[in-house]
Amino acid sequence: MSTKKSWKMKIDGERRDYRTVWMEDDVVCLINQLLLPHRFEIYRSRSYTETADAIKNMIVRGAPAIGATASYGMAQAVLDYDAGFDGFRAYLDRVSLFFHETRPTAHDLFHAVEYIYNKVIESGDITEAREKAMKESLKYADDSAVICKRIGEIGENLIEDGMNVLTHCNAGALACVDHGTALSPLRMAHYNKKRIHVYVDETRPRMQGSRLTAWELLQEGIDYSIIADNAAGYFMSKGEIDLVIVGADRIALNGDVANKIGSYEKAVVARENNIPFYVAAPHSTIDLKCESGRDIEIEERNREEVLGMWGLDRGEGRIHKISTSPGGSNTRNPAFDITPSEYVTAIITEKGVHRPDKIRKLRS
Amino acid sequence: MSTKKSWKMKIDGERRDYRTVWMEDDVVCLINQLLLPHRFEIYRSRSYTETADAIKNMIVRGAPAIGATASYGMAQAVLDYDAGFDGFRAYLDRVSLFFHETRPTAHDLFHAVEYIYNKVIESGDITEAREKAMKESLKYADDSAVICKRIGEIGENLIEDGMNVLTHCNAGALACVDHGTALSPLRMAHYNKKRIHVYVDETRPRMQGSRLTAWELLQEGIDYSIIADNAAGYFMSKGEIDLVIVGADRIALNGDVANKIGSYEKAVVARENNIPFYVAAPHSTIDLKCESGRDIEIEERNREEVLGMWGLDRGEGRIHKISTSPGGSNTRNPAFDITPSEYVTAIITEKGVHRPDKIRKLRS
Repeated sequence: MSTKKSWKMKIDGERRDYRTVWMEDDVVCLINQLLLPHRFEIYRSRSYTETADAIKNMIVRGAPAIGATASYGMAQAVLDYDAGFDGFRAYLDRVSLFFHETRPTAHDLFHAVEYIYNKVIESGDITEAREKAMKESLKYADDSAVICKRIGEIGENLIEDGMNVLTHCNAGALACVDHGTALSPLRMAHYNKKRIHVYVDETRPRMQGSRLTAWELLQEGIDYSIIADNAAGYFMSKGEIDLVIVGADRIALNGDVANKIGSYEKAVVARENNIPFYVAAPHSTIDLKCESGRDIEIEERNREEVLGMWGLDRGEGRIHKISTSPGGSNTRNPAFDITPSEYVTAIITEKGVHRPDKIRKLRS
Repeated sequence: MSTKKSWKMKIDGERRDYRTVWMEDDVVCLINQLLLPHRFEIYRSRSYTETADAIKNMIVRGAPAIGATASYGMAQAVLDYDAGFDGFRAYLDRVSLFFHETRPTAHDLFHAVEYIYNKVIESGDITEAREKAMKESLKYADDSAVICKRIGEIGENLIEDGMNVLTHCNAGALACVDHGTALSPLRMAHYNKKRIHVYVDETRPRMQGSRLTAWELLQEGIDYSIIADNAAGYFMSKGEIDLVIVGADRIALNGDVANKIGSYEKAVVARENNIPFYVAAPHSTIDLKCESGRDIEIEERNREEVLGMWGLDRGEGRIHKISTSPGGSNTRNPAFDITPSEYVTAIITEKGVHRPDKIRKLRS
């Protein structure tokens, strides 16, 4: 059985039948995002621990994609279970914790793990649990794709013909099961023949903008320019950006948004220039346990990410990891930041376009 | 004759006798900034055209360093001149234009070229012109070093013991003849035993922060952390940055500042967080012909800078140029931006600490 379904990803000009993550029998399949845009390869994970590692090592990234991957990983864990069924709850608690510890910021991860946990935990026996795990993880991913499509349909109303749009990081199909969050309205606008141009922040340190967003837009034939993160403010001040749209890793009840490091700066500079700043994310990104952004744990990642970069030496055709700094340098490397709600024009979910001060009401 | 003098640069723990640029006979010597921090090499330019190319190709960069290099380059041109002396003015006009066209934004470049031009143009014969060119270019560089030292002494008063300071790009000794502009007050504070910690924006696309500022601070033993440009706002919002200090490539009469791309964003976010934003630059950076930042030409550089990066593969010990984006991507690559005076707390020159609205009066 395969859960692979099409969002008809265009690769090298040809529409092909891919999602960012799917399951074939008990194998979780992922587009390997560490190798893009240089190589398109499918990573196959044969156990839940391997799947958790794939999240941790960022073979897959992006909040909704991490969520779907974790739901499939939970299913793998249920399929793998071979002790007496009376130990099932303790086992599933351990597995849940294992997934929780891969990435601390994205709320979709916790949401997905909890979703599968609750679906399978009351099963009468392991056979029933296995059936449910397979069915529900597929449903979770399918729903995620439908939600992202709906975000695109709703968000497209904000995109006018001829607009220049800035996006930060990758909140595209690669960050989700399909369609994307921030990129979904842009994709939809493009399908509907609106002419748009996207400024793509390259998004140091991991370059999700220049590696992944640029790759997606290139495949779709959407016009774009990669810019250094430092240049976003310049183009805003020049009147060359009409709208900013980003994704979210977690949204607090007061409308504060955790997203890729740098989002906060873009939001502040956007407001200073009277440019609307939109956040697009599934409703599940809202964390009922978070009153405000202050409650959100910010992941600090490996210092190596700031000390250098990896990429393709085009002459050689080989990927190298290079250092761009003196050996022995200290770094700080927060992976996310908090954009306070006052800088957020609106949050686009599958339920509509919401002012950030309406989030609490929406979620309750 | 050599114009080499010490600022006692520390290299690999040992104080060595270097300036960023100096002249030995008719050879202009430059610390090759394309190879730092991976290799310390002196680039030797044997003609004024080669010196202009070294500016263009960024073997040397930083407004005051470009100025001093251009002054030595002008001297080389005078030394080279071998036609009849009656054609000297036309020759010098051509050479001046040649230097002007290397980099369009830094005002020090125009200032230095004009300085040497005016000093030698009224000479009675070529021998006198040559003597003046050598003497005055050395004086220009010496004065530049003295000015930067003075900026350090004045600016140090703003640096308190225990401060966390953010800087963008490299406005250090490597950007000048000696001492630096933005880094000069920090160096001075460190010499005077104030404990400081510097957040170093890596400064995409050319990484002058992680390559050059980090290297200088490491040599001096000043505590620092390299951060992705995207993370500066995060640390500001967390109260972890007390003061921002940057250099300038040109200052308009209304106090608007042209500096490395990204400076504008940092200034906006600093003001939003009530953090003082200082600009340190020689008085010569003020351009009498610029009423406001709108009059300043912004250089757009090579798209290759945004499409990838160069650096050291530490395993191999070789420098590679890597691509971090899909082939065929569009880019935009402005090298500088304008920070309107309203975001600038004060401008530190060798003459004092000035509110930006006092610049016009100061210069007149």
